[in-house]
Amino acid sequence: MVINVRGYAAHSADSPLGLFSFVRRDPRPNDVVMEILYAGVCHSDIHSVRNDWGNAKHPMVPGHEIIGRITAAGADVTRFKVGDHVGVGCMVDSCQHCRACADGLEQYCEEGNTLTYNDFDRHDGMPTYGGYSERIVVSDKFVVKVPDGLDLAGAAPLLCAGITTWSPLRHWKVGPGSKVAVVGLGGLGHMALKLAKALGADVTLFSRSPGKEDDAKRLGADRVVISTDEAQMAAVHGQFDLIIDTVPYVHDVNPYVATLALSGTVVMVGYLGPLEPLLNSGPLVLGRKAVAGSVIGGITETQEMLDFCGQHGITSDVEVIRIQTINEAYERMLKSNVKYRFVIDLESLKEHVTEA
Amino acid sequence: MVINVRGYAAHSADSPLGLFSFVRRDPRPNDVVMEILYAGVCHSDIHSVRNDWGNAKHPMVPGHEIIGRITAAGADVTRFKVGDHVGVGCMVDSCQHCRACADGLEQYCEEGNTLTYNDFDRHDGMPTYGGYSERIVVSDKFVVKVPDGLDLAGAAPLLCAGITTWSPLRHWKVGPGSKVAVVGLGGLGHMALKLAKALGADVTLFSRSPGKEDDAKRLGADRVVISTDEAQMAAVHGQFDLIIDTVPYVHDVNPYVATLALSGTVVMVGYLGPLEPLLNSGPLVLGRKAVAGSVIGGITETQEMLDFCGQHGITSDVEVIRIQTINEAYERMLKSNVKYRFVIDLESLKEHVTEA
Repeated sequence: MVINVRGYAAHSADSPLGLFSFVRRDPRPNDVVMEILYAGVCHSDIHSVRNDWGNAKHPMVPGHEIIGRITAAGADVTRFKVGDHVGVGCMVDSCQHCRACADGLEQYCEEGNTLTYNDFDRHDGMPTYGGYSERIVVSDKFVVKVPDGLDLAGAAPLLCAGITTWSPLRHWKVGPGSKVAVVGLGGLGHMALKLAKALGADVTLFSRSPGKEDDAKRLGADRVVISTDEAQMAAVHGQFDLIIDTVPYVHDVNPYVATLALSGTVVMVGYLGPLEPLLNSGPLVLGRKAVAGSVIGGITETQEMLDFCGQHGITSDVEVIRIQTINEAYERMLKSNVKYRFVIDLESLKEHVTEA
Repeated sequence: MVINVRGYAAHSADSPLGLFSFVRRDPRPNDVVMEILYAGVCHSDIHSVRNDWGNAKHPMVPGHEIIGRITAAGADVTRFKVGDHVGVGCMVDSCQHCRACADGLEQYCEEGNTLTYNDFDRHDGMPTYGGYSERIVVSDKFVVKVPDGLDLAGAAPLLCAGITTWSPLRHWKVGPGSKVAVVGLGGLGHMALKLAKALGADVTLFSRSPGKEDDAKRLGADRVVISTDEAQMAAVHGQFDLIIDTVPYVHDVNPYVATLALSGTVVMVGYLGPLEPLLNSGPLVLGRKAVAGSVIGGITETQEMLDFCGQHGITSDVEVIRIQTINEAYERMLKSNVKYRFVIDLESLKEHVTEA
């Protein structure tokens, strides 16, 4: 009694995405079934599909910024009912008993959480398939409620880009009086600006190139500092309590460390790999500074973030696309030609009805 | 009306220390004059004297772990009286008005604090000379009280080695239930073990070589992990909330990061320079970990540390020497042949009385 679903999948690292029919599990008592309305397109979708991280499992249905409507709920589900607008992010399960899970930090599950796609269900071993599809079946513990009034397409990227920047802002206690800087203005960076500003911080955007001033200010930045301009960098020496570094490739972190205030922290959320050029510990020691990292966020704090966005009317700036254009969208993303997130309208998948 | 003082100085980067006569300032209303009883010998004394950091000002009288007795107090001094046993550490002044100073973090003074030696007084421009001498004149704000009953020779290293490890233990909130590891068993490391244990933490020593087990346990370690043994390192994967890394030369920090628990921090207190091999941000991101640094501590927390040591009967393990053997002591320190700190008994300086 599985559920037949259609989506878009890549069948290999170098093939384009196309229509794909697959099955999802028969819902368990604690599962909900969601009709997917919107799915955000994250840079990591491209990395995963193209096997940039060496762990691709094809066929792969990407998508971990999912907004949908509940169409069925198992007998044990109490928090949701049919018709609710809900979201699913990067995880659909975790061990539920390690210290991290007990603390609501499922993103750091000691046994490894179950990813929304490119993974296997920890109970039945079935492949997980993501949000570029009609429907998804998910344990209710990994489902969050979308506040009324939030634009559903714009809410989709909150499930990854939003929570990835929200979690460190909260962990490092950003609020009124905080001086926050954001490195990079992409999907993550534009959410970091919005969220930091709404939390009451003074917000600076670091950008490598000029021309982003108007957009950055509209998104919440109080100012833009061109990171390639030594005079501008010197002018913000020792300023920031927290820097959210969203750059997804190797880059020199030392110039940002120099702009940290006493006891400040650079949090890397985009790049995982060796820090080159060499990170210098001298400024860390002499200013009690830190270089840290953070990945997505827990389910409880994802709900808190969505509620906060509901109260402050915050969504992602999105360009809504038909699923048939996903391969072109990937090419545009690789050229940073999107402001600031593509979101697939899954209504477009219905155009394939006659082919199914 | 200056004060004539004798001490031991180096007259160049490659000359041994020897007897030196110099003057200290006529005490200001907020100064105290101390007869120096003991002066600890810190590794940075050697670096400074030999111009390893390129900023040596000769003749140089080293010494920034100073214990003495007050022999005179200026008219505005209210916290101390003649006869008090007091200490002076690495700083003798700071701007007193920046945010760091206002927060009691004079070690991070935005205008730069005044070092106890190898610096210039910020008011009269006179060179500062350290603790390898008979007497010192210091602003009362940079003087701390030695609790009754604490061994005076063993208390001297608390002023640098003690506070350097105490400050990060407190900043990162170590207490009962904390799992702390210490890298390196020297002057700093042996104090870190004692202080972390007395704060209630579970304490591990990382050592590159075996044979330190008995000593480490006597000093407060619950266990020793040989850092060159992959199996031992794997057994402590993901364990520690805080690692105090006291190693004073370049070394691979990545293996220690791997032993951090979720949200844990490696604090470097010994090495200032490029981190080589390359630090990998991946484990930082995937475990919300941090690599940070810390330098000595503020005056208020130095007093807190001394009071804590008074309550817990904590002093440094020292080998008391005559000042005439300081050059041999330096050679032994360079071979790590000291358990765990040399302290000069300044009584020995009186042997030079007929030569003065």
